[in-house]
Amino acid sequence: MENFSNKEKNLRELAGRIYDLDEEVYRELGSALGRVFNGKKEDCIEETVRMMHERNQAYILRSELALISNMARTIPDRSTRRGIMRKYDEILKEVTELPTSFIKGDILDQKIAQLNMLNLQSRFSKNDHLIICIGRTYGCGGSEIGFTLADTLKINYYDVEIFDEVLKRLEAEKESVMDRGGYPYKKDGKDRRQYLNEIPAFAPAPKSTLKEKFREFNRYHGLPKKDAVFFNQSDLLCDMAKKEDFVVMGRCADAILTNNRIPHISIFITAPLEQRIHRVMEVRGVENEKKARHLLAKLDKAHIKYYKYYTGRNWGKAKNYDLCINSASYGIQGSVDLIMRMIRREGAN
Amino acid sequence: MENFSNKEKNLRELAGRIYDLDEEVYRELGSALGRVFNGKKEDCIEETVRMMHERNQAYILRSELALISNMARTIPDRSTRRGIMRKYDEILKEVTELPTSFIKGDILDQKIAQLNMLNLQSRFSKNDHLIICIGRTYGCGGSEIGFTLADTLKINYYDVEIFDEVLKRLEAEKESVMDRGGYPYKKDGKDRRQYLNEIPAFAPAPKSTLKEKFREFNRYHGLPKKDAVFFNQSDLLCDMAKKEDFVVMGRCADAILTNNRIPHISIFITAPLEQRIHRVMEVRGVENEKKARHLLAKLDKAHIKYYKYYTGRNWGKAKNYDLCINSASYGIQGSVDLIMRMIRREGAN
Repeated sequence: MENFSNKEKNLRELAGRIYDLDEEVYRELGSALGRVFNGKKEDCIEETVRMMHERNQAYILRSELALISNMARTIPDRSTRRGIMRKYDEILKEVTELPTSFIKGDILDQKIAQLNMLNLQSRFSKNDHLIICIGRTYGCGGSEIGFTLADTLKINYYDVEIFDEVLKRLEAEKESVMDRGGYPYKKDGKDRRQYLNEIPAFAPAPKSTLKEKFREFNRYHGLPKKDAVFFNQSDLLCDMAKKEDFVVMGRCADAILTNNRIPHISIFITAPLEQRIHRVMEVRGVENEKKARHLLAKLDKAHIKYYKYYTGRNWGKAKNYDLCINSASYGIQGSVDLIMRMIRREGAN
Repeated sequence: MENFSNKEKNLRELAGRIYDLDEEVYRELGSALGRVFNGKKEDCIEETVRMMHERNQAYILRSELALISNMARTIPDRSTRRGIMRKYDEILKEVTELPTSFIKGDILDQKIAQLNMLNLQSRFSKNDHLIICIGRTYGCGGSEIGFTLADTLKINYYDVEIFDEVLKRLEAEKESVMDRGGYPYKKDGKDRRQYLNEIPAFAPAPKSTLKEKFREFNRYHGLPKKDAVFFNQSDLLCDMAKKEDFVVMGRCADAILTNNRIPHISIFITAPLEQRIHRVMEVRGVENEKKARHLLAKLDKAHIKYYKYYTGRNWGKAKNYDLCINSASYGIQGSVDLIMRMIRREGAN
């Protein structure tokens, strides 16, 4: 036998135990499914050790261990099964601790993780507030989920209408900044509800005269009005984030908070198109399926454009959120419960 | 005063309480943010009642209530705040119970929900097994998350390599069915690890001679070989689902189980491209960024094609899964913990 270093001896010993475990499982279950290791013991050990040395072979060892344990779990006799699983657990633990282990080299991104409130690995300070950003497709019940979530958590809820109200009230000059960041409002100064009554849609801001444009140019430091609205909202959002816990719907809040390095939870909610069509017809009184389908297509397109324009990111892509939820799988209360479970506060009324 | 029905009286009474609550909050906070209801009490009540009658105005009432409660939460005096919030909670409860309530008309889809193990609203029988289907982009740590999850839950783990092994062993004719459902294997009969060693890639099956094709045509009832492999896998999967709990990676398992009406949890895991590139280089030893980027683009494209071909659905779209997780936000162990919390078993070692 060759001369091995201590480290090498340990690896060979571990590989030997994997081989023996496979043999033991095979002995218990008979020949039904064959063995993972078929060759001579010495050869198998050498091959396994080779895998332990090379990072890019780690996943093969993982598959082999999974195969052995999958089979071991089918051993009928309980105490035999337990004994074998105990050995397996020990082996797995040691394999996992190898420097080449398949579990090493985490996908965790520190920059992303630091901003993610749901991440367990880095708890942040008590001064940080609980901020939940919810993006959603129209007609998926997302607003209702957000509202109910805020109510369950007893924290504030902000959506486009409320943002407008708050901004309107904060502005000394009441007429100056209103969110037309896409939403067409009939605004005749008489009845606030009249424009709230509109189904929000991302339409271009109403055309203004040249004179109005000049006035706006000066007022917003040369920014187009809708951009000024957006930046006002952004300021308000970051300001609020220093003071209170809240749920915020849309407004590119996730991107704004990320850019300002403010920890938050970003969630995207959607549902299959058929369910959204159904809901838009039922809840918002859109008369027929064709109209509902058309409306949703238009809104999705505008949503994508708006989000891309202000954030440079792709709206609704899973990789841009901490979490995406299919509301048709859970319903409104079910989705709220799911989010509550994730933030580790036991759910609902 | 007009004559109102009992129901109408109740609505007016409720609307009156909303008006009074708004007034009370305003009185406490002074004029800083103005009031939600500005008009005459009678007019406001009438308008609110109108909103209560119409389904498609429910969300306006929701916004108004949110505005009032957002403000109420800023009342400095604790006991005043509590008293007002108690009134608010009562009002919200009654509004929620109206037949036109914004919370009604759920997005929950019964057909989808019945197959969703995470849905709280319909617990299913004890005979159903816990089956977690994980789809993932390459390089996001998805396999490691799946493997660790299965180990934490002490249930079986299946991925493409293990499926192949199991199928190979189950087949009387060992050579007959191997998954080439896209994965190119060097298979020389000598060393199993040699082909396991390949980075799985969705490439077309190797070309076969006309004679081989005829033989395959007969063997697989006229199906192309890769389709036969797929259907063999599907059968195996549905079979397993009747017998055991498990985690399954890819294999279109979510779509197969849905088609066979077998409850399961479908999860999609991904991460931003930069993190995936980094991981592929680190873990699989891809030499440089350009190669890693190219590999990922190729694999994503093939993944999309494969999934579309066998399921008709779009791979990686949030609406097709119960849940999507960004692994860069949580890391491997963090993602496992998150899933554990969702299935309500307290997580991890």
